[in-house]
Amino acid sequence: MSNPAGQRRRGPGRPGYDQATVLRRAIELFNRKGYEGTSMGDLAEELGFSKSAIYHHVPSKTHLLAQALDEALDELTVVIREAQDESAGSAYERLRSVVRRSVEVLVAHQPAVTLLLRVRGNSEVELEALRRRRWIDARLADLVRAAAQEGAIRDDLPPDLVSRLLFGMVNSLIEWYRPEGEMSATVVADAIATIAFDGLTKRPS
Amino acid sequence: MSNPAGQRRRGPGRPGYDQATVLRRAIELFNRKGYEGTSMGDLAEELGFSKSAIYHHVPSKTHLLAQALDEALDELTVVIREAQDESAGSAYERLRSVVRRSVEVLVAHQPAVTLLLRVRGNSEVELEALRRRRWIDARLADLVRAAAQEGAIRDDLPPDLVSRLLFGMVNSLIEWYRPEGEMSATVVADAIATIAFDGLTKRPS
Repeated sequence: MSNPAGQRRRGPGRPGYDQATVLRRAIELFNRKGYEGTSMGDLAEELGFSKSAIYHHVPSKTHLLAQALDEALDELTVVIREAQDESAGSAYERLRSVVRRSVEVLVAHQPAVTLLLRVRGNSEVELEALRRRRWIDARLADLVRAAAQEGAIRDDLPPDLVSRLLFGMVNSLIEWYRPEGEMSATVVADAIATIAFDGLTKRPS
Repeated sequence: MSNPAGQRRRGPGRPGYDQATVLRRAIELFNRKGYEGTSMGDLAEELGFSKSAIYHHVPSKTHLLAQALDEALDELTVVIREAQDESAGSAYERLRSVVRRSVEVLVAHQPAVTLLLRVRGNSEVELEALRRRRWIDARLADLVRAAAQEGAIRDDLPPDLVSRLLFGMVNSLIEWYRPEGEMSATVVADAIATIAFDGLTKRPS
């Protein structure tokens, strides 16, 4: 992109970006080259800054990584908090809803979620993101357990395993989903909920 | 591992490896550091060779990558070929079977399959692997379509989408499955087939 939406011209040939655009371009670059494989020099080149000017705009690579991971984790945490509110319905209804809402978050924040799912724990920022992911995973397993206990879903499979597979199916979207394609987030969310809860096998109606 | 099973001592302090062990250690290293991030020097260090000796054992990094991707792709292709044999049962039975067999391949060849699933097409070897993956994906979608046509599975979801989600759930195993853990490949294969075909929702029995 030679002239992205967030770009403002500040002077002759000097691109100016708002922070949201810097972050978005950085996330795209991290996903393309890998976080470890991206240098501040690469980022400067991507944004059209000189190597010395980049530090006026971006304190550090780690800072951008932390912001990106927070973007994904904050959204997913909201979804979990909603699902913990028992006044919102049965555990079964809240589990179906959290599957759909996760798909929506993934589609709306696909670059940040992609970065999050590739984090391996190579720094304190990454370890903190992994801790937050584990908290989310544990709450999802709790919800599967509660839905089994209320008798709404099958109880012959380990809840941790069900939770991993269910959200493994959701997370697999990052490998192929393209927001500009013909499938909306709603179609994909419906398909995942239908397959996982109702099953593919046709039943006599 | 300081003295892996495949290691033979050829002389004082000179490790000797069979080709299978060299490949296995290389795949582990590629998965840990990323293929692009691994140098022949890293590989030499991993195997305890000098930088000059490594080329006596390994023609090139590309050669190892091609072997690794072939390991995963050859196994998956066998599974697809079996599923194409109409004398083996209905499309529905063959689809259930291909899900189970894919889990077995993934568990038995997890490092090679992990490498395969991370390939992005950065070289001719990677592009060829992506072509073979697309062929496999298309045959899986064919099988979903055939199972819908014979009336065994629901026909209200696009077969391509069902196929992507079904095998997205299978492939998500690489993120967390540990062969030394307490869950066998059979337990995981059963769980995936049960969730995807029968659904999580409990039905009156």
